[in-house]
Amino acid sequence: MNEVTLADVEAIAIGAGVLGTGGGGNTYMGKIWLKRELKERGGCVQIIQADEVADDDFLCSLGTMGAPTVSNEKPMQGDELVNIVRALEHHTHEKVKAIIIGEIGGSNSLKPLIAGLQLGLPVIDGDAMGRAFPELQMDTFSIGGVPHHPMALGDSYGNVVIFHQLDSALRAEQYGRTLTIDMGGSAALGMPVMHGRDMKKHLIRNTLSLTKKIGDVVLAARKKNTEPSDEIAELCKGHVLFRGKISDVERRTVKGFARGRMTITAFGNSNDKLELVFQNENLIAWHNGDIVATVPDLITLLNLEDGEPIGTEMLRYGLRVAVLGMPAPKELKTEKALEVVGPKAFGYPEITFAPMPGNLL
Amino acid sequence: MNEVTLADVEAIAIGAGVLGTGGGGNTYMGKIWLKRELKERGGCVQIIQADEVADDDFLCSLGTMGAPTVSNEKPMQGDELVNIVRALEHHTHEKVKAIIIGEIGGSNSLKPLIAGLQLGLPVIDGDAMGRAFPELQMDTFSIGGVPHHPMALGDSYGNVVIFHQLDSALRAEQYGRTLTIDMGGSAALGMPVMHGRDMKKHLIRNTLSLTKKIGDVVLAARKKNTEPSDEIAELCKGHVLFRGKISDVERRTVKGFARGRMTITAFGNSNDKLELVFQNENLIAWHNGDIVATVPDLITLLNLEDGEPIGTEMLRYGLRVAVLGMPAPKELKTEKALEVVGPKAFGYPEITFAPMPGNLL
Repeated sequence: MNEVTLADVEAIAIGAGVLGTGGGGNTYMGKIWLKRELKERGGCVQIIQADEVADDDFLCSLGTMGAPTVSNEKPMQGDELVNIVRALEHHTHEKVKAIIIGEIGGSNSLKPLIAGLQLGLPVIDGDAMGRAFPELQMDTFSIGGVPHHPMALGDSYGNVVIFHQLDSALRAEQYGRTLTIDMGGSAALGMPVMHGRDMKKHLIRNTLSLTKKIGDVVLAARKKNTEPSDEIAELCKGHVLFRGKISDVERRTVKGFARGRMTITAFGNSNDKLELVFQNENLIAWHNGDIVATVPDLITLLNLEDGEPIGTEMLRYGLRVAVLGMPAPKELKTEKALEVVGPKAFGYPEITFAPMPGNLL
Repeated sequence: MNEVTLADVEAIAIGAGVLGTGGGGNTYMGKIWLKRELKERGGCVQIIQADEVADDDFLCSLGTMGAPTVSNEKPMQGDELVNIVRALEHHTHEKVKAIIIGEIGGSNSLKPLIAGLQLGLPVIDGDAMGRAFPELQMDTFSIGGVPHHPMALGDSYGNVVIFHQLDSALRAEQYGRTLTIDMGGSAALGMPVMHGRDMKKHLIRNTLSLTKKIGDVVLAARKKNTEPSDEIAELCKGHVLFRGKISDVERRTVKGFARGRMTITAFGNSNDKLELVFQNENLIAWHNGDIVATVPDLITLLNLEDGEPIGTEMLRYGLRVAVLGMPAPKELKTEKALEVVGPKAFGYPEITFAPMPGNLL
């Protein structure tokens, strides 16, 4: 993959939704924004491979901080990401040479593409999560020891705040979250900045290409009027965990997160149930009481009507869904990574991560 | 005044308490910190006059953000102000040549002196309030249109946040207050930065010298075992509004502020009362129902035992006090200034500012 054109956007948005595991922000909003920018500016977003980047090139990772429930209702003004990159360049006295996708899941995969187009900068094929996660420190850069500062947050009034010095990843998350709530529950995020050598050490490669492949499967299935879950599962080394109807949803936007749980009931057998908990993203699935998938492995709901991935902000009673389980990328399954992205990190100390076989990539 | 030595600290702290009108942070904590720094480092803080500063000299105003109730219980770690100045220098690519006292009232007058000593920089005799005010935008720089960004906040763990772009003074207050609460309710503050020409346009001159003069009056009265209220009132062009005993105090720390009201009852006549409301600082005084002093004019309680000014965080039943009323500096009484620091700005739209005769300076 060496570019993203208008023709690619639909597929990438669907694929990003699948890797979003319910979170990462609503892809619809990002999709129409990226399409508009491509139409208005013409051309395409230049995509480069991680290993094409020079060791000394200065890079900035971009995304959004906040609850998906909010990002769905509060679109960006349009120049937040550019403001952030300019502010970080001013602060660091370095020019950004390429954009990193911080989080490939959900709308956060599309925002860096928009910024690349607006800034005339290439975007690197890969990301630091291989999915979506709710908190800042849950990525391979943080796990690998890349500093969190300077970090920037921008709101839709043009305000930009730079976290110049931060003593820990959790502090970045804490102060950033507080300010995000004050900025309206969703804010543009620039972090971490780094040089090519560090990016190459920690990036999960080719995840942008993967979104396109997943999306193409869904779009092809729509044309054939078939249901794409099994084919996506195969592409992502996973399997379909369950099919059924959402029979219960509890969801609250609390402390800047969309938190809750849902129950999915099998068609024609009301005793056969899948239960799921989420914090922005789907975390753990129980099939009739037994755990069948655990974070950091990926759990995604697809709408059986059209294969569209369903964000936790779009859940509602009666939706007919397939639940996909997909193994996490290997970078998320080291002992060090599991301390940050395993079930304990999400408040489930009693649950041990039992990985699905294989790796996403 | 061209220096502050160990021998001056006691008087300056008392004077700063008097101009603090109940707020600006507990002077005891700032006083012992400044004394320790002067003892350990030797020497003195160099004080310069506003008009000695070159037009192109880069300057930084320093202080603390937060509730006095918190600053009283949570001392600084010690290098917060230095961290902030270094971060702002890094961000602006300019070297700070002198320190501005943002707020002469309370402990915020002493912090810039400490920073001047730690950094080896002179401090300018004057400030931007001539007293203390609870909110960021309530100063002559803001009223005069000096930009609020970049602004820096620092906590006691070494974290520094820079507000790179802010669309209004109220935004600086809003985002800064939120982060201050997250930083523990009190944080080191650096803002605004400016060049000599802007400082000279807006500074209220000689307020540091005034604190020393007020403090000297109190210290002399202690030696003579007399009560200094009338003499301070004369020095500050004001008068004693009331003498009595605090008979009721309501105080809460809410949204980062110490808010409340108190009643003071005359000795020997329980029907003769002064009522006061405060938001960090004393705002309005009613004598038996009639307004006798209104913000921005200064209202300060002095302990009748020793002439010590009493911060709103130290109020308690039974304290025997003199209540001083002093006219605000002329810079706070323009139409534009009153929109920001008059009674309406504090939530009293029905009260019109009736200035005391004269000016503080």
